[in-house]
Amino acid sequence: MTARLRIALDAMGGDHAPDMVVAGADLARERCSNVEFLFVGDEARINALLDRHPALKSISTVRHTPDFVAMDAKPSVALRAGRNSSMRLAIDAVAAGEAACVVSAGNTGALMAIAKFVLKTLPGIDRPAIASIFPTLRGESVMLDMGANLECDADNLVQFAVMGTVFSRTVLGLLEPSIGLLNVGSEEQKGHESIREAAAALRDTPLARNFHGFVEGNDIAAGTVDVIVTDGFTGNVALKAAEGTAKLYSEFLKRTFASSLLAKLGYLLARGAFGKLRLRMDPRRYNGAMFLGLRGICVKSHGGTDAIGFSNAIAVAADMANHGFNDKIRDQLAVLQAALAASAAAKVEADGQGSEAAVQ
Amino acid sequence: MTARLRIALDAMGGDHAPDMVVAGADLARERCSNVEFLFVGDEARINALLDRHPALKSISTVRHTPDFVAMDAKPSVALRAGRNSSMRLAIDAVAAGEAACVVSAGNTGALMAIAKFVLKTLPGIDRPAIASIFPTLRGESVMLDMGANLECDADNLVQFAVMGTVFSRTVLGLLEPSIGLLNVGSEEQKGHESIREAAAALRDTPLARNFHGFVEGNDIAAGTVDVIVTDGFTGNVALKAAEGTAKLYSEFLKRTFASSLLAKLGYLLARGAFGKLRLRMDPRRYNGAMFLGLRGICVKSHGGTDAIGFSNAIAVAADMANHGFNDKIRDQLAVLQAALAASAAAKVEADGQGSEAAVQ
Repeated sequence: MTARLRIALDAMGGDHAPDMVVAGADLARERCSNVEFLFVGDEARINALLDRHPALKSISTVRHTPDFVAMDAKPSVALRAGRNSSMRLAIDAVAAGEAACVVSAGNTGALMAIAKFVLKTLPGIDRPAIASIFPTLRGESVMLDMGANLECDADNLVQFAVMGTVFSRTVLGLLEPSIGLLNVGSEEQKGHESIREAAAALRDTPLARNFHGFVEGNDIAAGTVDVIVTDGFTGNVALKAAEGTAKLYSEFLKRTFASSLLAKLGYLLARGAFGKLRLRMDPRRYNGAMFLGLRGICVKSHGGTDAIGFSNAIAVAADMANHGFNDKIRDQLAVLQAALAASAAAKVEADGQGSEAAVQ
Repeated sequence: MTARLRIALDAMGGDHAPDMVVAGADLARERCSNVEFLFVGDEARINALLDRHPALKSISTVRHTPDFVAMDAKPSVALRAGRNSSMRLAIDAVAAGEAACVVSAGNTGALMAIAKFVLKTLPGIDRPAIASIFPTLRGESVMLDMGANLECDADNLVQFAVMGTVFSRTVLGLLEPSIGLLNVGSEEQKGHESIREAAAALRDTPLARNFHGFVEGNDIAAGTVDVIVTDGFTGNVALKAAEGTAKLYSEFLKRTFASSLLAKLGYLLARGAFGKLRLRMDPRRYNGAMFLGLRGICVKSHGGTDAIGFSNAIAVAADMANHGFNDKIRDQLAVLQAALAASAAAKVEADGQGSEAAVQ
């Protein structure tokens, strides 16, 4: 039997909190057999909601606080002034070992600032990254960073590749996920220096066998690779550009079906098939931005999501915790660092022999 | 009557050249009343094709060269070794005043390198940029840079805003196009320093009244602004991410209509409406990447396009030439520079008064 997994929930984060948080937890309870919950927030409101879900209530604890982080609060302000906020206390519970992971639909910047401050980064990780799952022609892929770091050096990108690979294995269930570095062309001389250095470093590691090389913007939706690595500025723009185009298409599709009587009849006939497509592309399926690289599992749900979307964010957090996500990152980083050190040592030796040869 | 407009065509550039180039010119001839063509390339092959289009032949000249730039040639090699290439001679014709503009479906990097070397940049423009038109929920917008400059400073971005505005006015016919700087959030403190500096500079110019501020990736397809300004790395990734998502949707749509008998029947009924949608989203409509900021008009057609796509690239080049695109850029830059100088002088004076007041 799997051990019980306690999940801390920021009950006051998100546009429809706390209702959507409690309803989402109830849906997640049905999907994840071993979970229990720690709700942090307004006790009276949370208890009133829990009364409607007896099965959920029996596996839940409530920690009261009247404070919460506003959706538009500056991260620095939330960090300083929000010490008793529901977001902060939920993260504190992970740091204290009272919960295995935390999920919040609150303010993204504040969540990252507080999670970094309270949980700290994993050894070997310089900066945490935000990862997202998205639908592709071939299935699902993960991309990181989605906006935690606007500028990244080669080391950051290599660490992101490690974290993305472990995520893809543990949550998406891929044994050997392929990795691509997002660039403006596939040729080796293309792009920023940091990307070219990261590519060279990846070829020196055990990840080399899964390293596809550079990928371009159109490879994201094509699913050319399972893990797309990029800096937070580019990743944020690229994913939002893709989301915007998806919306454009949905809207044009709606207008097309409404444009004539025949088209409307056609829609009635094809409705069942389109229902399946809608389900497949449902943004709620891909709800949950994972903060990777922290000493604790933290998942950010979209602020405007509903109970179904929130339950998906909980399920991702539970998957990561159940599979010992952070232990696997630690193991992979150790292997990677050993390989990079060996490769550096081999280079020094080769250079040394080179100079000796030159001297002789 | 409009003056005759001579367009130089690199007859050997593109996957289906020279056939597609000649057929595309013939389509463009029907759309643009005042054009004539200078075909540069293999004379025997071009003449054989022109014989099939007598009306086109009557307004065409052929300049023979056996050389051409390979689609995979390195830009530096094409620049050094391609002095007699069809691409180079077509650009030379613009520099010599023999043609008003040039269109090529050849190697993008080579075309930019040769165009920059031969035509030089306009006074007041530090670097040329590549601009693209794309469909949005509200109509059509233009984005630049699409990949000519991987890193851009604030001055570059301000110059791109000027060029994008003039392009939007002359080719898309918008009187007061709105401008947005692509960023990861709309708040003033977000993003790279260069973007924040460019935003501050734009607010000091006559463009301020049309400056919307920062836009995000999803604003591209939403059509939030008419001109999206960004560096070449981000612009390239964003547009390709959008194109990839559009392809994903088309593919899912196809699969959905094929997924059941009812859905197939539905498609038959809605086919007319979908034909219109396909026409509206046809990538050939948006074929043509404009090289802006050079002392000569140069349009790059997609290498894999057909005659219809190539004729659209020719039409954009003809529009730019007919509307005196580069003269308008010169005028706008003069106004902009005067405004920036006046604003700088006002600041110096204010600072001076400030120090006097401090002394008193």
